[in-house]
Amino acid sequence: DIIGAIRSALTEGPLKGKHILVTSGPTHEPIDPVRYIANRSSGAQGTAIAVALRDLGAEVSFVTGPADVPPPSGVKVIRVETAREMKDAVEAALPAEAAVFAAAVADWRVATENGSKIKKVKGELPTLEFAENPDILAGVSQMEAGRPRLVVGFAAETDDVVAHATAKRKRKGCDWIVANDVSPATGIMGGSENAVVLITERGADDWPRMGKDEVARQLAYRIADHLNGTDTSNAGRR
Amino acid sequence: DIIGAIRSALTEGPLKGKHILVTSGPTHEPIDPVRYIANRSSGAQGTAIAVALRDLGAEVSFVTGPADVPPPSGVKVIRVETAREMKDAVEAALPAEAAVFAAAVADWRVATENGSKIKKVKGELPTLEFAENPDILAGVSQMEAGRPRLVVGFAAETDDVVAHATAKRKRKGCDWIVANDVSPATGIMGGSENAVVLITERGADDWPRMGKDEVARQLAYRIADHLNGTDTSNAGRR
Repeated sequence: DIIGAIRSALTEGPLKGKHILVTSGPTHEPIDPVRYIANRSSGAQGTAIAVALRDLGAEVSFVTGPADVPPPSGVKVIRVETAREMKDAVEAALPAEAAVFAAAVADWRVATENGSKIKKVKGELPTLEFAENPDILAGVSQMEAGRPRLVVGFAAETDDVVAHATAKRKRKGCDWIVANDVSPATGIMGGSENAVVLITERGADDWPRMGKDEVARQLAYRIADHLNGTDTSNAGRR
Repeated sequence: DIIGAIRSALTEGPLKGKHILVTSGPTHEPIDPVRYIANRSSGAQGTAIAVALRDLGAEVSFVTGPADVPPPSGVKVIRVETAREMKDAVEAALPAEAAVFAAAVADWRVATENGSKIKKVKGELPTLEFAENPDILAGVSQMEAGRPRLVVGFAAETDDVVAHATAKRKRKGCDWIVANDVSPATGIMGGSENAVVLITERGADDWPRMGKDEVARQLAYRIADHLNGTDTSNAGRR
């Protein structure tokens, strides 16, 4: 991907000089030294978004959990494992003109992480106490000072996608939600395609199924239009 | 790794014509469509063992969970996700002359897997009920008919490695245990080196720290010696 990095350095794209934060991948929440709770996220969509923003000239900070796909070149990569580490990395990476939260962050962590491996005892089952993780999207969306001009969240839903995502946008206070249906039957999770609905203050825009790279490119153009004030209510896909 | 596969096909190694089963990688136990519980296991050691056995001429059935490292060529690859799927795949792959259980199988699964994503509700924490997974190593070790002549288990411990692994060998009924210390400080988990203790009926043999490839090669030779009746109490490493 060296070509892409060179192109980005030379390009006079619509995001030239703009700092954009992208989170990607899952978080891993340790149970003990050998076990953890994870979200299914290959990091493919978040990585594609970072690439697309870079290719439009943005300076991208890429905060990534342990993803399957390698992070792109030509962006600043910050690797984390847990939701709390991701929150710290996001706060350290701000300020930014826009922030795209594509990571699948664990809602809960194990409250009582064991320093030693939990031993299996015949006939006994473990019990796990959970604690709520910090809500990174809501935290940044509701910043009183230094909030990015555009905050984009993601919603992975298995049913009632638009209703759930529209409610999530209001609850979190973010500007846009990129929602998708991650039901196993769609083949989207872990696959190369995505079918998203973009939820904005103007409603729900249902994008046709396309490659994750193409979803990323369309989203990057929409972000550029928004930051450059060229976003209109009829702004379509390119 | 095509060279290795060709070498194996041509070789007259000490395991020529012998069918050996190897399990590798972690298992993933679903919580709901987007969340799961996993073991930390890159699959590096199990993959290296399959390669080493193949290079000595064995016909290897390789049952692997979702590992970080790709499975080797020249072996029969069976991909699984959960412990129950791994058990089924192991039973289908038998009979075998030897079985090496290098996979990090989850001891427990979530008893009540959710078909829909568990929604986050402010102030509410999820509770997970667990169920015990089938014990694949004990099951094969204690087969009354058709048991492999040599059953090798693994023990990932964080303390009292030899004592825990020796007890595990007796409890499971396997022939050997390859034990290692997976405390984070050792850097073994996810790393390229391993420091193992081989527990047999003759006691504990503490191997020096070496590459995972070399651990695999030594183990493959020990397996060949055992199956060929050339294993002596003084059998050292090569």
